[in-house]
Amino acid sequence: MMDMKIPRSVTIREVCPRDGFQSVKEFIPTEDKVKFIDTLAETGVSIMEVTSFVSPKAIPQMADAAEVMQEFNKKWKGKVESVVLIPNLRGAENALKTDPDWINFVLSASEAHNKANTRRTVEKSLEELRRVAAIKGDTKLCVSVATAFECPFDGAVDPEVVIKVLDAIFEIGVQGVTLADTIGTADPFEVTRTLSMVRGKYGDYPFYLHLHDTHGMAMVNTMAALHLGFNCFDSAAGGLGGCPFAPGAAGNAATEDLVNCLERMGVNTGVDLLKTISAARNMESYGLHVMSHLAASSIGRKDSSCCQG
Amino acid sequence: MMDMKIPRSVTIREVCPRDGFQSVKEFIPTEDKVKFIDTLAETGVSIMEVTSFVSPKAIPQMADAAEVMQEFNKKWKGKVESVVLIPNLRGAENALKTDPDWINFVLSASEAHNKANTRRTVEKSLEELRRVAAIKGDTKLCVSVATAFECPFDGAVDPEVVIKVLDAIFEIGVQGVTLADTIGTADPFEVTRTLSMVRGKYGDYPFYLHLHDTHGMAMVNTMAALHLGFNCFDSAAGGLGGCPFAPGAAGNAATEDLVNCLERMGVNTGVDLLKTISAARNMESYGLHVMSHLAASSIGRKDSSCCQG
Repeated sequence: MMDMKIPRSVTIREVCPRDGFQSVKEFIPTEDKVKFIDTLAETGVSIMEVTSFVSPKAIPQMADAAEVMQEFNKKWKGKVESVVLIPNLRGAENALKTDPDWINFVLSASEAHNKANTRRTVEKSLEELRRVAAIKGDTKLCVSVATAFECPFDGAVDPEVVIKVLDAIFEIGVQGVTLADTIGTADPFEVTRTLSMVRGKYGDYPFYLHLHDTHGMAMVNTMAALHLGFNCFDSAAGGLGGCPFAPGAAGNAATEDLVNCLERMGVNTGVDLLKTISAARNMESYGLHVMSHLAASSIGRKDSSCCQG
Repeated sequence: MMDMKIPRSVTIREVCPRDGFQSVKEFIPTEDKVKFIDTLAETGVSIMEVTSFVSPKAIPQMADAAEVMQEFNKKWKGKVESVVLIPNLRGAENALKTDPDWINFVLSASEAHNKANTRRTVEKSLEELRRVAAIKGDTKLCVSVATAFECPFDGAVDPEVVIKVLDAIFEIGVQGVTLADTIGTADPFEVTRTLSMVRGKYGDYPFYLHLHDTHGMAMVNTMAALHLGFNCFDSAAGGLGGCPFAPGAAGNAATEDLVNCLERMGVNTGVDLLKTISAARNMESYGLHVMSHLAASSIGRKDSSCCQG
């Protein structure tokens, strides 16, 4: 029987402005980005990944990172914690100029994905992380461990490999760690196996989980993590993000679907469901590829009607 | 921690031709329906809900039920068990002429939904069920208990009410019972609560679960049921069904998403994943509103490519 004891509250880190927007090909004008971010900040989330300081050649959508952060800080500094993604030392240097609460360094547990994503070995990424840690000052440093469960090139990732990478990260010293199912193909048993080992090794360290919904398993994997006591999750309003090359290919766990399920189970998220749905629909009407169930549902619609199937 | 002991095999009852097609407004020509049904029968499912014998005024899409069954029997009789939905005695009479393996009578646990759906009290529906049981002959009789967890009018349905209805059904005598989250709004804890009571009362009776995905919880609810040992599930290829008045509003649990998740966890479904994906894509290319993750994914596509998010 499913254990009904899960955490009574969770922290949701809204990643739509980074992971969601980066998957949108057409440039979203900075003014519009800032408006979307405002609607997301108003949902009650306590922490948000606002942008990323990456090469504008690699991801043109994020070319306005500094401006977006400037606007964010004007309104939300001290109210909603900001996270910015950085792929390397240079990204960290640029990011730190904009006074984020967190910088989020990405490396992969699997060598093949780390090489594809960063053109480095994991060892070299860890060296870069050490350099980032040395210059970060008072800014908090998170490390996102991509392919913590499944790698698009190597398949299932050995939990021992994940533990080895985590050991190295903790030895360098960071303020947060994220475990990511980057391609969204892990199943609940894989997630349970790896996270059980992680719990065994690091106790109740507040890892974030970043679970993509590519194959519709984000929610079952979230449940698996909750049953092990994990209580920090990334999600994106509207389910934006990931690999939207085909209709229906959901990206991230959708914040509104996650909030709805959790709040129904009595888990406090601190996030206003209707405001999140409204923010997602707002992005949808703008033309973004919103894929959440709740945004498409009748909730909050004046003209709602439903057949009985 | 999530119990990793779940059934090693499950039965999947493919309901796309009934629950999926009935939600399609434009009439699908009989010839096309039969072709889609053939592709679904070829996936390896052992049982399929093929059509329903309802008033053609109420659901014009099902006006060709007798012809569809005739074609089904020609090819699949003895290979794939057929189920046809019936709302009443008259439907049963019409259905029985077409030699189905199962007739599937629908009533609701909640009075309000039963009235809306069948214009009868639950008591009157049970009387009608008794009349159906009296004429069914050798054909197997299943009862689908709609709103077994949540009612669109009455909210959460008291498990005691469900037990009371089940007692009455078993007293009449049937060969199968389905418990349906008709509107797809139940959460895993609700499902666990009701199903625990059902298990306590009826032991390991092989109930089917019919879990809609309206709010993206079909898979977590399936997991909750699996953890209690339930191992018979309805699903629809492509996630067709339910209430598709808005893009993204998924209907049923999608067969391919369910099969993928279960098989990854080592649960045998007997269903060929690639054939199911192919069947769903085939319906999508025809214009049907396919909403599954796997149909939209890169699996089985020659031109597959994926960004690293």
